[in-house]
Amino acid sequence: MSYYKHHVFFCLNQREPGQDCCANHGAQAAFDHCKQAVKAAGLAGPGGVRVNKAGCLDRCAGGPVAVVYPEAVWYTFVDSADIDEIVESHLKNGRPVERLQLPPTVGR
Amino acid sequence: MSYYKHHVFFCLNQREPGQDCCANHGAQAAFDHCKQAVKAAGLAGPGGVRVNKAGCLDRCAGGPVAVVYPEAVWYTFVDSADIDEIVESHLKNGRPVERLQLPPTVGR
Repeated sequence: MSYYKHHVFFCLNQREPGQDCCANHGAQAAFDHCKQAVKAAGLAGPGGVRVNKAGCLDRCAGGPVAVVYPEAVWYTFVDSADIDEIVESHLKNGRPVERLQLPPTVGR
Repeated sequence: MSYYKHHVFFCLNQREPGQDCCANHGAQAAFDHCKQAVKAAGLAGPGGVRVNKAGCLDRCAGGPVAVVYPEAVWYTFVDSADIDEIVESHLKNGRPVERLQLPPTVGR
């Protein structure tokens, strides 16, 4: 059994000025929003959900990106409403959000 | 199918001076060693292995720690020989290393 039921990793990588990266596309705000929403929903902790900072996940072409394990579901998102939907549907009710998933061909 | 066959996250969290953390116990050196060993073994990339930086994984009592997804296997390690064993046995040959696994009760 997985120590966390859902372990979410947000790319917060900040590249050199002039280079594009998730951090230039609201990744930190999305992470903060997700962390707060998971805590507010009472989902945080062992056996529940962990929202984690991560370095570059190397799927930059789809950025900003996050991945949920152990189910290996990858997301891209635009705003806090997207994050709310991921929290409510996937992290709370176990139904991954199809419309926000990263196509399998998206890489660096 | 998981975008990465094995996605490894190392806690590289650095706390304030005086507070213990994985970064004070060789986490960066272990990450660097793992990254290099995975690359040298030709395992890196989509469909293969990704070695990733992460923030605090909140299992500090067992630190330094790393987790491998999607199989959700958690490790604690002492030196580069431990990392070599994880790379060879688990990441290359699919056999998790029992002796280095974090007991399920270890938390923050």
